[in-house]
This record gives sequence, structure tokens and C-alpha cells, in this order.
Amino acid sequence: MDSTTLIAFASILTAGFTTAIGCVAPALAEGKAIVAALQAIAQQPDASSTTTRTLFVGLAMIESTCIYCLVISMILIFANPFWNHIIAK
Amino acid sequence: MDSTTLIAFASILTAGFTTAIGCVAPALAEGKAIVAALQAIAQQPDASSTTTRTLFVGLAMIESTCIYCLVISMILIFANPFWNHIIAK
Amino acid sequence: MDSTTLIAFASILTAGFTTAIGCVAPALAEGKAIVAALQAIAQQPDASSTTTRTLFVGLAMIESTCIYCLVISMILIFANPFWNHIIAK
Amino acid sequence: MDSTTLIAFASILTAGFTTAIGCVAPALAEGKAIVAALQAIAQQPDASSTTTRTLFVGLAMIESTCIYCLVISMILIFANPFWNHIIAK
Amino acid sequence: MDSTTLIAFASILTAGFTTAIGCVAPALAEGKAIVAALQAIAQQPDASSTTTRTLFVGLAMIESTCIYCLVISMILIFANPFWNHIIAK
Amino acid sequence: MDSTTLIAFASILTAGFTTAIGCVAPALAEGKAIVAALQAIAQQPDASSTTTRTLFVGLAMIESTCIYCLVISMILIFANPFWNHIIAK
Amino acid sequence: MDSTTLIAFASILTAGFTTAIGCVAPALAEGKAIVAALQAIAQQPDASSTTTRTLFVGLAMIESTCIYCLVISMILIFANPFWNHIIAK
Amino acid sequence: MDSTTLIAFASILTAGFTTAIGCVAPALAEGKAIVAALQAIAQQPDASSTTTRTLFVGLAMIESTCIYCLVISMILIFANPFWNHIIAK
Amino acid sequence: MDSTTLIAFASILTAGFTTAIGCVAPALAEGKAIVAALQAIAQQPDASSTTTRTLFVGLAMIESTCIYCLVISMILIFANPFWNHIIAK
Amino acid sequence: MDSTTLIAFASILTAGFTTAIGCVAPALAEGKAIVAALQAIAQQPDASSTTTRTLFVGLAMIESTCIYCLVISMILIFANPFWNHIIAK
Amino acid sequence: MDSTTLIAFASILTAGFTTAIGCVAPALAEGKAIVAALQAIAQQPDASSTTTRTLFVGLAMIESTCIYCLVISMILIFANPFWNHIIAK
Amino acid sequence: MDSTTLIAFASILTAGFTTAIGCVAPALAEGKAIVAALQAIAQQPDASSTTTRTLFVGLAMIESTCIYCLVISMILIFANPFWNHIIAK
Amino acid sequence: MDSTTLIAFASILTAGFTTAIGCVAPALAEGKAIVAALQAIAQQPDASSTTTRTLFVGLAMIESTCIYCLVISMILIFANPFWNHIIAK
Amino acid sequence: MDSTTLIAFASILTAGFTTAIGCVAPALAEGKAIVAALQAIAQQPDASSTTTRTLFVGLAMIESTCIYCLVISMILIFANPFWNHIIAK
Repeated sequence: MDSTTLIAFASILTAGFTTAIGCVAPALAEGKAIVAALQAIAQQPDASSTTTRTLFVGLAMIESTCIYCLVISMILIFANPFWNHIIAK
Repeated sequence: MDSTTLIAFASILTAGFTTAIGCVAPALAEGKAIVAALQAIAQQPDASSTTTRTLFVGLAMIESTCIYCLVISMILIFANPFWNHIIAK
Repeated sequence: MDSTTLIAFASILTAGFTTAIGCVAPALAEGKAIVAALQAIAQQPDASSTTTRTLFVGLAMIESTCIYCLVISMILIFANPFWNHIIAK
Repeated sequence: MDSTTLIAFASILTAGFTTAIGCVAPALAEGKAIVAALQAIAQQPDASSTTTRTLFVGLAMIESTCIYCLVISMILIFANPFWNHIIAK
Repeated sequence: MDSTTLIAFASILTAGFTTAIGCVAPALAEGKAIVAALQAIAQQPDASSTTTRTLFVGLAMIESTCIYCLVISMILIFANPFWNHIIAK
Repeated sequence: MDSTTLIAFASILTAGFTTAIGCVAPALAEGKAIVAALQAIAQQPDASSTTTRTLFVGLAMIESTCIYCLVISMILIFANPFWNHIIAK
Repeated sequence: MDSTTLIAFASILTAGFTTAIGCVAPALAEGKAIVAALQAIAQQPDASSTTTRTLFVGLAMIESTCIYCLVISMILIFANPFWNHIIAK
Repeated sequence: MDSTTLIAFASILTAGFTTAIGCVAPALAEGKAIVAALQAIAQQPDASSTTTRTLFVGLAMIESTCIYCLVISMILIFANPFWNHIIAK
Repeated sequence: MDSTTLIAFASILTAGFTTAIGCVAPALAEGKAIVAALQAIAQQPDASSTTTRTLFVGLAMIESTCIYCLVISMILIFANPFWNHIIAK
Repeated sequence: MDSTTLIAFASILTAGFTTAIGCVAPALAEGKAIVAALQAIAQQPDASSTTTRTLFVGLAMIESTCIYCLVISMILIFANPFWNHIIAK
Repeated sequence: MDSTTLIAFASILTAGFTTAIGCVAPALAEGKAIVAALQAIAQQPDASSTTTRTLFVGLAMIESTCIYCLVISMILIFANPFWNHIIAK
Repeated sequence: MDSTTLIAFASILTAGFTTAIGCVAPALAEGKAIVAALQAIAQQPDASSTTTRTLFVGLAMIESTCIYCLVISMILIFANPFWNHIIAK
Repeated sequence: MDSTTLIAFASILTAGFTTAIGCVAPALAEGKAIVAALQAIAQQPDASSTTTRTLFVGLAMIESTCIYCLVISMILIFANPFWNHIIAK
Repeated sequence: MDSTTLIAFASILTAGFTTAIGCVAPALAEGKAIVAALQAIAQQPDASSTTTRTLFVGLAMIESTCIYCLVISMILIFANPFWNHIIAK
């Protein structure tokens, strides 16, 4: 098992599981936020514009944590400095 | 166990489990969102259009985290830069 | 343990467990959605058509995450590019 | 440990545990759905026909995820392409 | 450790644990369904015939997931194609 | 470690743990069912005959999943086809 | 490590843990049943005879799952066919 | 590591952990039963004799599962047939 | 690693963890019992003598499961038949 | 790794973790007891003497399980018969 | 496996999982905060400005813990002193 | 790996994790006690002196379990009899 | 694997996971504190200044535990005495 | 792997994880305490001085368990007697 293979091996595993684990919590959190938004609409239909705006800001914040993981995965697949160093050698 | 085999081994495992783990949370979150939507409809049948619209936007957001994992899996199966590097060698 | 065997080994394991893990959450989520639908019908029998329609759209969304896993499993069993590369060699 | 043995080993383990794990969630989800149906009947005996119909559609949807796992298990036992390739060799 | 032994080893382990794991969820789900049925009878003694019928249909559905696991176990013990192939060789 | 020993080793372990794991869920489920029956009797002493009959049918259904595991254990100890094949050889 | 030792090793471990694991759930389930019986007596002291009878039938059913595990343990210690075969050889 | 040592090793470990694991659930279950008894006494001081009697019968039933584990442990330490066979050899 | 060392190694580990694990559940159960006693006293100060007596009997029963583990630990440290056999040899 | 080192290794690990694990449950249980005492005082300030006395007796009982673990640890560190036997040899 | 490879291996794994694990809790916490904000708006639409301001300050605090993990990951990928030392050698 | 190193290795690991694990439960328990105290003060501001005194006694009791772990850690780092024996040799 | 590599390996892993694990609890705790603050504002808009001040003090206390972990990570990456000792050698 | 490396390896790992694990519970406990304080202020704004004082005393107590872990970590990094003994040799 030479260096190239090992780096590729680690990058593939890490890229996959980082995204997989990193999507668990945002999905659950978004689900809860949407549940709360639907309950708020059912409780006060008049404030639906404020509710919707707060919901979208919140979803964007939560989605950002998910994006961080995706970014790390993409860096590990397409812009991995360790891989570049190894194959340049 | 040569390099080609190991990279293929890692890619297969990661592709499968990334999608499998990445689908757990979205499915649960979508379930909760639909539960909340059904309760909101039962509580306020008049606001069903707002409820449905918010539900669909929310489901799309949650589904997106699931799609990220599927995309990573598909990249690992069909557009894997490490695999391409190894078999090109 | 030659390459062919290892790739087959990984594909079999991954195909099985991807579907197995990927079916846990959708089944639970569908169960919750149906529970909510039954409660909504019991609470407001008049809105049963809206309830049923929302339920079916929701079940389709949840089932989709389950189908993704099944698709990955099927690709790994019947259209596995790594396996094809190995046995073509 | 030659190739034939290893493929058979993996197929047996995967076939068994795929069905075992894949039956956990559907059983629990069906249990919850039946609980909700029984409560709905106890709460509104008049809507029992709608309740029963929704329950059966829901049970069929949940059972489908269980069937997917069984299908994968059966494919791995009786129509396994990797096994066929190995023993044909 | 020759091939025959390994296949037998895997078949015994898988057969036992498939049934063991596969019986956990149905037992719990049946327990919940019976709990709900008893509560429904206590709440509405008049609808006990509908309750009982729904309960029995539900128990049959849940028991089916348990039977799938038992079937896989029995196939692995008494009609195992991999075992038959090995001992025929 | 010859074949006989390994098969016996696997059979002993599997027989024990199959029964042990397989008894967890039925015991808990029966406990819940009895709890519900006692509450139903306390709530409606008049319907105690229906309650008792439903309870006994339910306990029999739950006990059946436990019996499946015991049957698999007994087959593995006293009618194990793999063991018979090995010691006949 | 000869065959006799290994079989004895497995039998001791399995016998102990089968009983240990198999006693967890019955103890908890009996505890819940007794809790429910005490609450039922506190709620309806008049129906204490029915309560007590149902409790004892239930405790016997739950205890039976515990006894199954004890029986398997005792068979493995004092009537183990694999051990008898090995030491007879 | 000769046979005597291994059998002693397994017996010590199993004896200890069987009792340790086997005491977890009875202790918790007895705690719950006592909690329920104390609540029942606080709720209906007049029925304290029935409560106390049911509590003691229940504690005896729960304690029995704990005793089974202790008995297995004691058999493994002081009347272990495998140990007797080995040291007699 | 000779026999004496291994037996001592196993005895030390088992003695420690048996007591450690065996004290978890009794401590929690006693905590719950005391909580219930304090609530019962706050609810019915007049029945404090009955409450206290039932509490002490219950604490003694729970403490007994803890003592069993301590006894096994002490036997393994100070009256271990396997250790005596080994060092006598 | 000679005998002295291994015995010391096991004693250090066991002494530390026995106390660590053995302190988890008593701390939680004492926390719950104090919570209940504070609630009882807030609910019935007049019975604070009875509450306090019952609390202190209960804390002593719970602390005793913690002390057992500390005693085992101290025996293993300062009065370990296995260690004394080894270094005396 | 030389030094360069091992350091790269560890850096890739750690960078990925640090971000993945570090995003779980902030996402869940932000979800809860947004749920509370939506409920507060539904309960007191008049105080929506105070609610929104407190929400945003809180989201920033929670996001900071997520950023710490991302910073550690980025340091490990792009400014890793151990990697620099190794490749400088 | 000589004896000195192994003893130091075990002592470092055990000292750290004993304190780490041993601080989990006391911290949570103290948190609950303080929560209860704050609620009691909010409910009955007049009994705040009794509440505060009971809280401080309780915190001292809980803190004691934490101190036990710290003491064991300190003994293992600064007064370790096994280490002293080894380095004296 | 020489000393330098191993120390770097351990430092990278520990630095990453210390921050990752150490950020889980503060994020959740801050989320709960913000939830409580939002509920307090919705319940008593008049006391919002006291609420906000207490919230900020509390967030600072919670954030401090997170900072401790970050500090340990930074020390391990940039001021590691073991690393300095090794590379100075 | 010589002694110096192993001691450094263990010290780094233990120092990091001791602080990481040791910060989990205090952060959660402080979060709960702050939640209770905010609720108490919202419920009784008049007693805010008593509430705040009790909160700060409690936070100090909880923070102390966190500090113990940090102290152990710092001792292991900067005043480690085992490390000093090894490098002095």
C-alpha cells in the first residue's frame, strides 16, 4: 500500500462520511424549525409574513453548518493539498 | 491488495454508507414536517394553502441535505478523481 | 484474496446494509405521518380529502429517500463500474 | 480461504442481517399506525371506514420498505451476480 | 479452517441472530398494539368488535415481518444454496 | 482448531444469545400489555372478561416471537444439520 | 488451545451471559406490572381480587421468558451435546 | 496458556459479570415498585395492608431473577463441571 | 504470561468492574425510592411512619442486589478457588 | 511484559475506573434526592424537619454504594493480595 | 507507510470529522432557538423586534462554536505546523 | 516497551479518564439541584434560607463523589505504589 | 514510524477531536439558554433587560468551557512541549 | 516506539480528551441552571437578586468540576512526573 493509495483511501472515506454525518443534524433541525413554523401559522395566521421571514433566515443559518461540511468534502476531493503534494512528488 | 482494488473498495463502501446515513435524518425530518402540516390542517382548515406552501418549501430544504449525500455518492462512483488518477496510471 | 473477490465482497456487504439502514428512517417517518393522518381524520372528518392528499404527497417524498438507497444498492449489484473495470481486466 | 468461500460468507451474512435490520423499523412503524387507528376508532367510531382504508394504504407503504430489504436478501441468496461470476469461472 | 466449516459457521451465526434481532421489533410493536386495543376497549366497550378485528389484522401484518426473518433463517439452515454448492463439490 | 470444534463453538454461542436476545422484547411487551390490562380493569371493571380475553390472545401472539427464537436455539443444539454433516464425515 | 478447552470456554461464557441478559427484561417488565397493579389497587380497592389474579398470570407469563434462558444455560452446563461428543471422543 | 488457566479465566470473568449485569434490572425494577407502593400509600392510606402484601410478593418475584444470576455465578465458581473435568484430567 | 498472572489479572479486573457496574442500578433505584418517599411525606405528612417503614424495607431489598456484587468481588479477591488451585500447584 | 508489570497495569486501570464508574450513579441519585427535598420544602415548609431527616438517611444509603467502589479501589491499590503474592515471589 | 503519508492521513481524517462532529450540536441548537423564536412571535407578535434581536445574538454565539471547529479543520489542512515540519525535512 | 513505560502509560490514561468520567455525573447532578433550588425560591421566596442551606449541604455531598475521583487520580499521579515499586527496583 | 511522526499523529488527532467534542455541549447548552430567554421575553416583556443581562453572563460562562477545549487544542498544535522536546532532540 | 514517545503519546491523548469529556457535563449543567434562572426571573421578577446570587454560587460549583479536569490536563502537559522521570533518565 503506497502513499498515493493511502491518501486517496483516507480522502474518499473522510469526504463521504463528513457529508453524511454533517447532514444529520441540519436535516433534523430544519425539520423542527418547519414544524414550529407550521404550528405558528396555525396559531396566528395573521403573523405569517413575520413567521415566514424568521423561518427562512433560520433555515439559511442551519443550512450553513451543512454547507461547511460539504465544503470540507469538496476540498478533500477536488483541492486536497496533501494529495497534490503526493502526486506532485 | 493493489492500489486499484483498495480505491475501489473504499469508494464502494463510502458511496453506499454515505447515502444510507445521509437519508436517515431527512426522512425523519420530513416525517415530522408532514405530521405538523397534517395537525395544522386539522386545526385550521382555512389556512391550508399557506400551510401547504410552507410545507413544500420546507420539504425541499430538507431534501437538499439528502441530495448532497447522493451527489457525493454519485461523484465517488462515476466521477472519482482518485480512481481516475489510479487507473490512468 | 484477489481483487475480484474483494470488490465482490465489498459490493455485497454495502448493497445489503445500504438498503437495510436506508429503510429504517423512512419506515419510522411514514409510520408517524400515518399516525398524524389518522388523528387528523379522527379530529376533523370533513377535511379528510385534504388530509389524504397531503399524506400521499408526504409519503412519496419520504419514500424517495428510501428509493435513493435502493438505487445505490442496485447500481452496486448490477451496474458497478469498479466491478466492470476489474472483470474487464 | 478461497474466493468462492468468501463470497458465500459475505452473501450469507448480508442476506441475514439485511432482512433482520430491515424488519425492525417497519414493525415498529406498523405498530404505531395500528395504535393510532385503534385510538381513532375509539374516538370516532363513525369514521371507521375512512380510518381503516387509510390504515391499510399506510401499512402497505410501510411494508414496502420491508419488502425492499427482503428482495435484496433474496437477490443475494438466489440471484447473486458476483457468486454466479465466481462459480462460472 | 476449510470452506465447509466457514460456510457452516456463517450460516449458524446468521440464522440465529437474524431471528433474534428480527423478533425484537415485532414483539414490541405487538405489545403496543395490544395496549392500544385494551385502552380502546376500556374507552368504548361498544366498538369492541371493530377494535378486535383491526387488532387482529394489525397483529398479522406485524407478525409477517417476524416471519420473513424466520424464513431467511430456515432457508439458511435447511436450503442454503451456498452450503449445497460447497458440499456438492 | 478443527472443524468440529468451530461448529460446536458457533452453535453454543448462537444458541445462547439467540434465546437471550429473543427474550428481551417479548418480556417487555408482555409487561406493557399486562400494565394496560390492569389499567383497563381499574378503569372499567365491567369489561374485565373482554379485557382478559384480548390480553391472553395478545400474550400468546407475543410469546410466539419468543418461541421462534427458542426453536432456532433448540434446532441449533439438538438438530443442527451442519454439525450432523461434520461429525458424519 | 485444544477442542475440549474451547468448548468449555464457550459454554461457560454463553451460560453466564444468556442468563444475565435474559433476566434484564423480565425483571423490568415485572417491575412495571407490579407498579400498574399497585396503582390499580390504589385507584379501585374493590377490584383487588381481579387485579391480583391478572397480575399473577402476567408475572407467570413474563417469568417464563426468563426461565427459557435459564433452561438454555442449564442445558449448556449440564447436558451439552457438543461437550459430550468431544469428551466422548 | 494451558487449558486450566483458560477455564479459570472464563469462569472468573463470567461469574463476575453475570452477577453484575443480572443485578442492574432487578434493582431498577424494585426501585420502581417501591416508588409505586409509596405513591399508593400516600394516595390511599387505608389500603396499605393490600399494598404492602402485593409489594412484597412482587419484590420476591423480581428478586428471583436476580437470584438466578447469582446461582449461575455460584455454580461457575464452586460447582463448575468443566473445571472439575479439566483438573480431574 | 504464565497462569498465575493471568488468573490474577482476570480476578482484579472482574472484582473491580463487578462492584462498579453492580452499584449503578442500586444507587439510581435508591435515589428514586427516596424521591418518592419525600414526595409522599410532602403529600401526606400524617402517614410518615408507614412511608418511612416501607422506604427502609425497600432500601434494604435494593441494597441486597448491591451486596451480592460486593460479595462476588470479595470472593474473587480473598477466597478465589481458581487462584488457590493455581498457587497451590 | 513480566508478571509484576501486568498485575500493576490491571490494578491501576481497575482502581481508577471502578471509582469513576461507581461515582456516576450515586451522584445522579443524590442530585435527584436533593431535588425532591427542595421541592418538598417548597411545597410543605412545615414538614422540613422530617424531610431533612429522610433526606440525610437516604443520602447516607446512596453514598454507601459509592463507598463500596472506593473501598474496592483502595484494596486494589494498597492491599492487593495478588500484587503481594507476586512481589513476595 | 512513511512519515509524510501518516501525517497527511491523520490530517485528512481529523479535518473532516472535526467539522462533521462540530456541526451536529450547533445545528440542533440553532434549530431549537429558531423554534423558540417562532413560538415567541406566535405568542407575542408585539415583541417581535426584541425577539429577533435576541435570536440573532444567540445564533451568532452558537455559530461561533461551529466556527471554532471549522478553524481547526482549516488550520489542519492549510497551515498544519506538523506537516510543514515534515515536508521541510 | 519496558515495565516503567507501561506503568506510566496506564497511570496517565487512568488518572485522566477517572477525573473526566467522574466529573460528568456530579456536574449534571449539581445542575439539577441548582435548578430545583431556583424553582423553589421562585415558588416560595420566604423559605429561601432553608432552601439555600439544604442546597449547600446537597452540593457538598455531590461534590464529594467528584473529589473521590480526583483523589484517586492524584494518588495515581503523585503517590502511586506500583510506580514507586518499579522505579525503586 | 519514528517518534516525530507518532507525536505529530497524536497531536493532530487530539487537537481536532478535543475541539469537536468540546463544542457539542456548549452549543446545546447555549441553545437551551437562548430558548429560555426567548420564552422569558415572550412571557414578561417588561423584564427584558434583566433577562438579557442574565443571558449574556450565562452565555459567557458556557462559552468558557468551550474555550478551555480550544486552548488545549491550540497548545497541542502551536506550543506542544512534547513535540518541542522531540524535534529539539 | 521508545519510552519517551509512548509517554508523550499517552499524555497528549489523555490531556485532550480529559478536558473534552470533562467539559461536556458542566456546559450542559450550566445551561440548565441558566434556563432555570431565566424562568425564575420571568416568574418572580422581585426575587431577582436572590435568584442571581444562587445562580452565581451554583455556576461556580459546576465550573469547579470542569476546572478539575483542566488542572489534570495541565499537570499532564506541563508537570507530568512520569515524563520528567523518563527524560531525566
